[in-house]
Amino acid sequence: MTNPSKIFAPFHCPIARSLAVIGDRWTILILRDLVRFGPRKFQDLEGSLNGISPNTLSLRLKRLEEAGIVERRFYEQHPPRADYLLTEVGKELRPVLKALFEWGQRYTKYRAVTVAARQRRVSRPNR
Amino acid sequence: MTNPSKIFAPFHCPIARSLAVIGDRWTILILRDLVRFGPRKFQDLEGSLNGISPNTLSLRLKRLEEAGIVERRFYEQHPPRADYLLTEVGKELRPVLKALFEWGQRYTKYRAVTVAARQRRVSRPNR
Repeated sequence: MTNPSKIFAPFHCPIARSLAVIGDRWTILILRDLVRFGPRKFQDLEGSLNGISPNTLSLRLKRLEEAGIVERRFYEQHPPRADYLLTEVGKELRPVLKALFEWGQRYTKYRAVTVAARQRRVSRPNR
Repeated sequence: MTNPSKIFAPFHCPIARSLAVIGDRWTILILRDLVRFGPRKFQDLEGSLNGISPNTLSLRLKRLEEAGIVERRFYEQHPPRADYLLTEVGKELRPVLKALFEWGQRYTKYRAVTVAARQRRVSRPNR
């Protein structure tokens, strides 16, 4: 893309404007998959994003497409089959993912959710 | 802090673990303010985070405190007055904010919301 489209948001702060487009967990995880695996079909994304509903995935992809971050590409016409890939503007989000990766690797650890913890969360849904 | 506490999340991917703690828009904007302004009182944060409810702010701060990213400090005892500041672990999130800032500055632009756009959004609440 020679002339990357501008995304508009009603915030003077560039961080707030970025978050207006990519400021939710699923969106960032979609971008992670497209960075990590390259072009992905809807079903691929659905499979690796554990727990996402098809409706949410569809809405997130549509918003990313409208913002010019993700592109939908038809690689077959009969029957129509498409996959999703990052545009040049989308590829420029790699430093965000890298920073999240490095912080997560350094300051967080994997631990399976225990039954007790899950029950605590159920009883405090807003936390 | 000599021995930074580990944050636990049930994901093998470090990006997903980071997002388990800081993966929502308000949380990142709170961190932005603490990086930009230094220690902030609850009322300061409420004032600069346009549209946040006191309840949401309180929950986000509590979660950040539990994760060891933000610290609550009493600077006066009678009457008790506290402010919030980043811990060493929290300060290490600066590269995430920097990456969001740089992408936002380069690929997004400020534009006030028009009445028409606001109405469109109201009629499509999930977008």
